[in-house]
Amino acid sequence: MERIPILKMGKFLIVSIQVDMHDELALALQEDLAEQIVKTRAKGVLIDISSLNLVDSFTARILGNMTAMARLLDAETLVVGMRPAVAMTLVELGVSLRGIRTAGNAEKGMALLEAIVAQQAKSNAPKST
Amino acid sequence: MERIPILKMGKFLIVSIQVDMHDELALALQEDLAEQIVKTRAKGVLIDISSLNLVDSFTARILGNMTAMARLLDAETLVVGMRPAVAMTLVELGVSLRGIRTAGNAEKGMALLEAIVAQQAKSNAPKST
Repeated sequence: MERIPILKMGKFLIVSIQVDMHDELALALQEDLAEQIVKTRAKGVLIDISSLNLVDSFTARILGNMTAMARLLDAETLVVGMRPAVAMTLVELGVSLRGIRTAGNAEKGMALLEAIVAQQAKSNAPKST
Repeated sequence: MERIPILKMGKFLIVSIQVDMHDELALALQEDLAEQIVKTRAKGVLIDISSLNLVDSFTARILGNMTAMARLLDAETLVVGMRPAVAMTLVELGVSLRGIRTAGNAEKGMALLEAIVAQQAKSNAPKST
């Protein structure tokens, strides 16, 4: 597989990562995601990692980069579906997911994204005249 | 990867198939999907195949089986993101996707699923007393 698909759902984009990341795939995903955020004017990105048995420091960095990049393009990112074993390994390895929001599953994640985006829209809204 | 993840989004389930199907994986996916449809009472299933370069007769049969199974469990299935080359190959191979609904992308698919489910709810609604 040369590309990880990005699905558009309403205001949001959904990325389901099912294979271990390597350099080329990660780079392609970041490029595709940046392009899609701009093209679709998405306000949020949901990244599902429920298929991953292992999140190493490389993958953690990629997730962090995507989050930072999406934020620059005015979209919030949420990582969902982390397995308990993955969380334990991340802590043991001392890998931090600083700046990365997480939620238990896709549905909760979507609700949280909706709430965050609604909150931002409210605080960014121009004063009524 | 031993499992293809199934994401719940509102009334619907989303399955993103990113790897070529083999017997074991296909069987696991069918089991998981049936279980999730019942557990979540999902009314529709969206299957994204935009990552697939090839849909052979085996994969086509699996898609057909999943559609039929979901229908028995009272859920509609929609296949989205088929690549042009895949459609051409299916026709050349003489593989039919009978009974399988398709849509161009995930967003259109979701809208179509919403419409189908709303239509069904209407026609199934008990007469008002």
